[in-house]
Amino acid sequence: MIHALLLAATAAQAAPAPVLPSDPLPADWVAVPDDELLVFTLANGKTVTVRLAPAAAPVHVANIRKLAAAHWWDAGTSVYRLQDNYVAQWGDPTEKKALPGGIVANPVPEYEQRGPTAVARLSRRDPYAEWAGYSRDGWPLAGIGASQWLPHCYGMVGVGRDMAPSTGSGAELYAVIGHGPRALDRNIAMVGRVVEGIEWLSSLPRGTGDLGFYKTPAEYSPIVSARLASDLPAATRPHFQYRATTNPRFAAWIASRENRAPPFFTVPAGGADICNAMPPVRRTP
Amino acid sequence: MIHALLLAATAAQAAPAPVLPSDPLPADWVAVPDDELLVFTLANGKTVTVRLAPAAAPVHVANIRKLAAAHWWDAGTSVYRLQDNYVAQWGDPTEKKALPGGIVANPVPEYEQRGPTAVARLSRRDPYAEWAGYSRDGWPLAGIGASQWLPHCYGMVGVGRDMAPSTGSGAELYAVIGHGPRALDRNIAMVGRVVEGIEWLSSLPRGTGDLGFYKTPAEYSPIVSARLASDLPAATRPHFQYRATTNPRFAAWIASRENRAPPFFTVPAGGADICNAMPPVRRTP
Repeated sequence: MIHALLLAATAAQAAPAPVLPSDPLPADWVAVPDDELLVFTLANGKTVTVRLAPAAAPVHVANIRKLAAAHWWDAGTSVYRLQDNYVAQWGDPTEKKALPGGIVANPVPEYEQRGPTAVARLSRRDPYAEWAGYSRDGWPLAGIGASQWLPHCYGMVGVGRDMAPSTGSGAELYAVIGHGPRALDRNIAMVGRVVEGIEWLSSLPRGTGDLGFYKTPAEYSPIVSARLASDLPAATRPHFQYRATTNPRFAAWIASRENRAPPFFTVPAGGADICNAMPPVRRTP
Repeated sequence: MIHALLLAATAAQAAPAPVLPSDPLPADWVAVPDDELLVFTLANGKTVTVRLAPAAAPVHVANIRKLAAAHWWDAGTSVYRLQDNYVAQWGDPTEKKALPGGIVANPVPEYEQRGPTAVARLSRRDPYAEWAGYSRDGWPLAGIGASQWLPHCYGMVGVGRDMAPSTGSGAELYAVIGHGPRALDRNIAMVGRVVEGIEWLSSLPRGTGDLGFYKTPAEYSPIVSARLASDLPAATRPHFQYRATTNPRFAAWIASRENRAPPFFTVPAGGADICNAMPPVRRTP
């Protein structure tokens, strides 16, 4: 792959790429609300920014916002689990730290939602659902009829929980760092997506204990703070945009993901799975 | 997830698990031939063991065996690319190191094969093919009619190449370290699967250059040797086994992957994609 991709990169630098039907217009980029952006800062100074999905899991996301407002993650929390090809998990490894007032300790399951259904869909059936596609506001979706959910794709964030009927409070979170473990769909509350910094989780040493838990606290990666962008000073507040999904340019983008183009690709697949066609999100230029 | 999985692990340690229809018999484990195991040793002493797939790409695999026999990877080669959620790539970053005699510099494309078709299949259509399943000798397969290929799943190994008609010699290899980039299926020669040590690649720092290439040689992870198990002394030769795929126990295992069990899982998916149902391979006990 090296030559081809380097050539492509070099060409892209040498001359402006031709405009494609799949290219977005400036107006296709829509601001992510500040209170949907949660910035985790690790002890090494690296940040992991999560876009929250309040529509998918309103009670769990309300808990997470309260935990951030109470600075709950600022002391005694760490990335304490790294299971290869599965998840990075963080929070309070002792599970003994008291939760702030107002937290719903065990919300009702928020694993599926009833429409509005996807505004754009992939061509082929999803192996874990009847269909896969995109919400109006830039989220990936999988669904059966009018029931839909956020799929477990790379970078998606879920709520750690105990055995059912536990749904987890939101204090323990994980991000997918391997092939999308879609069997978890509809079994766990999905609350967001890492939009920047997933590499600071995915490149951590793998835990050598059962299920990727680190054997010793010395192996943990401490978390020093978690803040909603809306609680950060304007000067340091990050801004992100999602790509609008309700226009012909996005439809052309889906087609381009399902049929990758020459010169590198010579056999188009004619389809894609949702985790290989994640809706674009970017830092606001 | 933490409580549930820890409980499961603890229970597994406390008492022998009940025998399930999906449990293999001792005779279901079949030895991987020594000349199908290629052991790469990194400068840090960690090893990455690849099972080669001569039936899928005979000329490319013959090249790789000749490169190993000539100790080609033992000097001047490194892991020089780490693209998050995509691939780790290794070989000669200068692409100037001469290849030993007898190497077919640019084999014909070995991207698809005609049967024997899969001996076991998943229930649902594969988004990148008509079907997905398993070969008699423990490989994952995707296919259209009687045409089949090795899918780009986590840990699978492919041959880096230039633009078509280049197919690559096999000197530059990559392993998938993210969500299976299935769009590469039928566009690249797949030559194997990492059966041990993928975590030594997946946890490397991500490259910050275009497409995940490291910007400086100081960031490379040098390779100090690559040997076929058949060329190693018996005392240090690793042994692996794949699980036979042609018995009712394996069929029950597929069903168990498509419908994950309580108590942690409460909603079975009814299906799985091949990258989440990779055929079991293990070190020989």
